[in-house]
Amino acid sequence: MKDFLFYAPTEVQFGKQSEELVADLVKKYGGTKVLLHYGGQSAKRSGLLDKICRLLNEGGIEYIELGGVVPNPRLSKVKEGIALCRQQGIDFILAVGGGSVIDSSKAIAYGVPYEGDVWDFYIGKAEATTCLPVATVLTIPAAGSEMSEASVITNEDGDIKLGYSNNICRPKFAIMNPERTFTLPPYQTAAGVTDIMLHTQERYFNTECDMTIADTIAEALLRTMKECVFAVLENPEDYRNRAQIMWAGSLAHNDVTGNRLTGDWATHSIEHELSAMFDVTHGAGLAVVWPSWARYVYKENMSRFVRFAVNVMGVENDFTDPEGTALKGIEAMKRFYRAIGMPTTIRELIGRDITDDEIKEMASKCTRGGTITQGRFKKLTTADIEAIYQLAR
Amino acid sequence: MKDFLFYAPTEVQFGKQSEELVADLVKKYGGTKVLLHYGGQSAKRSGLLDKICRLLNEGGIEYIELGGVVPNPRLSKVKEGIALCRQQGIDFILAVGGGSVIDSSKAIAYGVPYEGDVWDFYIGKAEATTCLPVATVLTIPAAGSEMSEASVITNEDGDIKLGYSNNICRPKFAIMNPERTFTLPPYQTAAGVTDIMLHTQERYFNTECDMTIADTIAEALLRTMKECVFAVLENPEDYRNRAQIMWAGSLAHNDVTGNRLTGDWATHSIEHELSAMFDVTHGAGLAVVWPSWARYVYKENMSRFVRFAVNVMGVENDFTDPEGTALKGIEAMKRFYRAIGMPTTIRELIGRDITDDEIKEMASKCTRGGTITQGRFKKLTTADIEAIYQLAR
Repeated sequence: MKDFLFYAPTEVQFGKQSEELVADLVKKYGGTKVLLHYGGQSAKRSGLLDKICRLLNEGGIEYIELGGVVPNPRLSKVKEGIALCRQQGIDFILAVGGGSVIDSSKAIAYGVPYEGDVWDFYIGKAEATTCLPVATVLTIPAAGSEMSEASVITNEDGDIKLGYSNNICRPKFAIMNPERTFTLPPYQTAAGVTDIMLHTQERYFNTECDMTIADTIAEALLRTMKECVFAVLENPEDYRNRAQIMWAGSLAHNDVTGNRLTGDWATHSIEHELSAMFDVTHGAGLAVVWPSWARYVYKENMSRFVRFAVNVMGVENDFTDPEGTALKGIEAMKRFYRAIGMPTTIRELIGRDITDDEIKEMASKCTRGGTITQGRFKKLTTADIEAIYQLAR
Repeated sequence: MKDFLFYAPTEVQFGKQSEELVADLVKKYGGTKVLLHYGGQSAKRSGLLDKICRLLNEGGIEYIELGGVVPNPRLSKVKEGIALCRQQGIDFILAVGGGSVIDSSKAIAYGVPYEGDVWDFYIGKAEATTCLPVATVLTIPAAGSEMSEASVITNEDGDIKLGYSNNICRPKFAIMNPERTFTLPPYQTAAGVTDIMLHTQERYFNTECDMTIADTIAEALLRTMKECVFAVLENPEDYRNRAQIMWAGSLAHNDVTGNRLTGDWATHSIEHELSAMFDVTHGAGLAVVWPSWARYVYKENMSRFVRFAVNVMGVENDFTDPEGTALKGIEAMKRFYRAIGMPTTIRELIGRDITDDEIKEMASKCTRGGTITQGRFKKLTTADIEAIYQLAR
């Protein structure tokens, strides 16, 4: 068993009354002048943004607004935010939205005190040693960015989507009111649950597979999500199940389901190229990639895939045929994705056939031209990744 | 579903190399002059204390030693620590040991900046608003104090054992090397696992029973502990299973298995009187109390006890007889306690018959003479608690 660090300092205020605490929490964590960062119209339309503004005003906290974050958040918006923060003397960033807004906020937070180009961190040219404090009022359960150390940004100049992880940017607090997720459309809801589950699956398929306590917790979370998602697709205002999903989104990425450093993460890397090139929803892309990844790698550790099939997917264990059981588990996952309205082929995802050249380009970018392999459960070369894209066509 | 706070800021460094980080971590969290707080001879004998001293010396960190913490840690030792810290200008407390040492450290940490009597916090006369930073090198997985907000102290003047909870005292860091638990005797090992499981059971039997994601995680943790404990009782140097237990000890009390504020906690309160009066091991006391508590309260929410029987204890669900299934689960728990060497009657626990007067005295103390009821799953009066002690004789 590898040594590990568990560090989840974010103060999570969860529930119907949680938004009321926003001004007190900003003050508690030292904010005096806030960048209020958000995405499109939904936060305005729902009245959430107005409420947060009113509460900050009542709390005597100054703020500047910066909206317009899009899914697969862009480097250009990050740079706009950095300039604005410097100009206005901002000392705290409050992300109102989902993973894209939080990731954009983290990038701005790194960039403000850094003299160089913030993209340096994402391409591995520099390590951040300080950043502005970030916190969030979460509206989309999916990315887990509200408790995680990760931030993923897309550089439009070349459609390059890269992640940067650093414990210093873990949010100071996260306000989570499940009622704010009632209006999430079915597709976003299902894509969010897919992402939540994948954060757990990436850890579950790891180099060692010997951390039973994390594995059993991971299985519990995955099984629970499989139930909850159908409940909220049927009844979007089912508070209890919206709450399970929202809280699971944090647990799936705060490392209680396993050590992120021994997890596989190839599915995420392979998907990042799809969403960078075609600007598709990350969770939907994961549903397309995972079954193909699984079929390509399962022989690496058959018993783990048997365990997944039996303990997570509820497949009857055929003890005489481990491979058959493993494959049934992968098929069951694919059927689950279809049942919740997720695509399971690239064609369904992007609305047309993908070309061989596009696949080659993505596989090459994914391994930075072949010098970097992806995946820890099974190391994947450019050719392997190309084969996985082919399986997923 | 009740709103909840999740706050687990402790930096956990887990594994074989973790102790090497001690000096860097003390510095990171602002310590310059440390109180090195510990218990008896085991930390000295094992060489751990020498190693920590060497590492602090090499890191240029001053420290003063204060050993002699006993199980059910005493208020007198806490007061000795407070005086020593003030006299020496200590600014950081490092607990090397298990829950007793950490709880004693937390009490000292509250007491140093407080003008009144530190016992005020424990009797509800005052709330702490500041405390010295506390951190730990953990050697006994059981109490979960390494990540929790709780501290339990015994006032020898009247054998009163009381807990005080405050988020400000959550340890800054916890160093956890499972190898340090290899030498734990079987009885302490089993009592520790009993305590870990009970922290989860107390949350599992709660007022609402509607937080599925926490329930399934709780069940996963409980099932895992049931396996691991037999492995380490057979082979005390089984690193992997010692590690599962050590990490589960933290997870069981850092609130991922449920909201502590809706949990029952009557078993803990009822046991505290036993260990206060007879100075017995807390975990062993819990094994005596829980089955009697369960038999006394199960009708309050039969389906929850059926679920516990089936999902945790592996009892076959007799759908025609929920009560029979629930009772089989309680019996299975009792058999499990016996199998790991725990007592299941007060007689076995204290080595003689308990008197009716002693039971009356404990029941009265437990409810502070009848004005305070215990338990949230089922509210218990003094008479109820007396009945539970009688069932446990």
